[in-house]
Amino acid sequence: MVDIAFLKPVESEIAQVETRIKQTGERDFPYLTDLLGHVLGKSGKRMRPGITLLVGKNFTYFEERHVPMAAAVELLHLATLVHDDIVDDADTRRGEETINALWGSKVAVLLGDYLFANSAELVTSTGSLAATELFAHTLRELATGELQELSVAFTGDSSRDLYWKRIYGKTASLFATAAESAAILGDASPRQIEACRDFGTNLGMAFQIVDDILDFEGSEEQIGKPVGNDLLQGVLTLPVIIFIEQHGIQEIIKSEKDLREPGSAAEITEKIQNSSAIADAYTVADEFLEKARHSLKELGESTYQRSLVEMIGYVTKRQS
Amino acid sequence: MVDIAFLKPVESEIAQVETRIKQTGERDFPYLTDLLGHVLGKSGKRMRPGITLLVGKNFTYFEERHVPMAAAVELLHLATLVHDDIVDDADTRRGEETINALWGSKVAVLLGDYLFANSAELVTSTGSLAATELFAHTLRELATGELQELSVAFTGDSSRDLYWKRIYGKTASLFATAAESAAILGDASPRQIEACRDFGTNLGMAFQIVDDILDFEGSEEQIGKPVGNDLLQGVLTLPVIIFIEQHGIQEIIKSEKDLREPGSAAEITEKIQNSSAIADAYTVADEFLEKARHSLKELGESTYQRSLVEMIGYVTKRQS
Repeated sequence: MVDIAFLKPVESEIAQVETRIKQTGERDFPYLTDLLGHVLGKSGKRMRPGITLLVGKNFTYFEERHVPMAAAVELLHLATLVHDDIVDDADTRRGEETINALWGSKVAVLLGDYLFANSAELVTSTGSLAATELFAHTLRELATGELQELSVAFTGDSSRDLYWKRIYGKTASLFATAAESAAILGDASPRQIEACRDFGTNLGMAFQIVDDILDFEGSEEQIGKPVGNDLLQGVLTLPVIIFIEQHGIQEIIKSEKDLREPGSAAEITEKIQNSSAIADAYTVADEFLEKARHSLKELGESTYQRSLVEMIGYVTKRQS
Repeated sequence: MVDIAFLKPVESEIAQVETRIKQTGERDFPYLTDLLGHVLGKSGKRMRPGITLLVGKNFTYFEERHVPMAAAVELLHLATLVHDDIVDDADTRRGEETINALWGSKVAVLLGDYLFANSAELVTSTGSLAATELFAHTLRELATGELQELSVAFTGDSSRDLYWKRIYGKTASLFATAAESAAILGDASPRQIEACRDFGTNLGMAFQIVDDILDFEGSEEQIGKPVGNDLLQGVLTLPVIIFIEQHGIQEIIKSEKDLREPGSAAEITEKIQNSSAIADAYTVADEFLEKARHSLKELGESTYQRSLVEMIGYVTKRQS
């Protein structure tokens, strides 16, 4: 089940989390097994629950707190994917059909809500009000990030500040919470809790930047969606932002209309691919990873801390 | 602002709740004021926060607990309406355009999520893990009720049991939590907490039954949506279920296809209107209200308890 080396030290705990995730819906919808199995059945990279478990193990690990928290973090992630696929009109994700493609967007709206709810219930079952508060806050940050992305789509906005806010909201906030909540539940010191949050935030920022780079780099087969998909959605990500900073916006986008023409998205994609913007974006991702590495020093040396360091290395190496 | 007599004793508290609700989004989206104002600006009947405040006042009232809880309960209700309108393809609600009609269903998906998140944050701000657990549980019940409704649509299923489950999930569960959470936050005894939950559950069941009756009774102007709308959505509610019990299903639905033809929905609506099914459904609503009245006896006599009794009387008198 765990095919990523850095998760080895928490292999059996990840299996417990998988079981928890797969139990979702059993009590309410025995007849919806296939619907839920479609979302919950595939083992993703499970990075977020991996962070929660590794951080927990590094401090004081409580199975009855860290397992539900890790499951909650992953379920929250899966819930946002179900809703994102509606927003993006996505028919496939990682090569498999989406819930909205298979069962329609009405089912996808309600199924996403159902997953949010299950995730919230798992968090409260940790018995920690602090973790629960953090979770509710993250839920708001995720929705804010997505709404921001939708609201700047096709506006041609290429400010880095807004980009940082968007990717913090939609991705880094949950990585931060995966780490911070585990430290809180593991009775870490305030200073260690803060270091964990910083680690998660910076790792998440880099993770999303690499995601945005792969949107230009990979093949459709590799990334499981069309190359240049963000541009087709009218969203400018770091490689485009860097290109615009270096060459001027008129070099790729002459008018808002340009963004709305699929042909021009393909043209822009090619220009980005042939420029130094990709390499420069990787450099930015590395800067965030360096900060994440620095934060981990607060955790002290342990097998689990070393796995978290390995996880950092993985972010820029991954192909999907 | 409060035009319903039974809310008089908590008029100033309701105003505080309104302020809290209207603040939603200010910090994240100063530019989305109109979008949010559209959902949050209209003062509905505010029955759910009214229950929370009246129950709180009847026991030990804490402004810093009961005001955010009441706001959370109403925001959760508003969030579900935003998502329901996507699921029902509704262009108007109470005569006003819906979020999906005005800004599209993508915005509606994310805005609903954002409201869920704000509501969850308000609950955690009460500082009560018990109230937070209850809230997360209710979130799951709401989504379950809606998913059940969607999954039986157009199946011609007319079992009362399934109807009770559906309306408990989609409506009564939140009424129950509005009352129970206020009792928990007001340091009520376990017996009183249970009585409050029973009161809320039974009131909510009756409230939804009357809603379902009004779908057949009112004019489009009164109820703010087409008459017989549930039937158009393929959903059989209590008046239809009673009619089927009395006359046999073949009297109105000969095949599943019948349900899918708008013309036949109009025909069925007329048959229901001319039958005793409406009056019989009101009798069932009254039975639930009688149970709600009985539960209130556990609360002891107070101005606030009397208001809750008045609220019971209002449920079957309302026109929309």
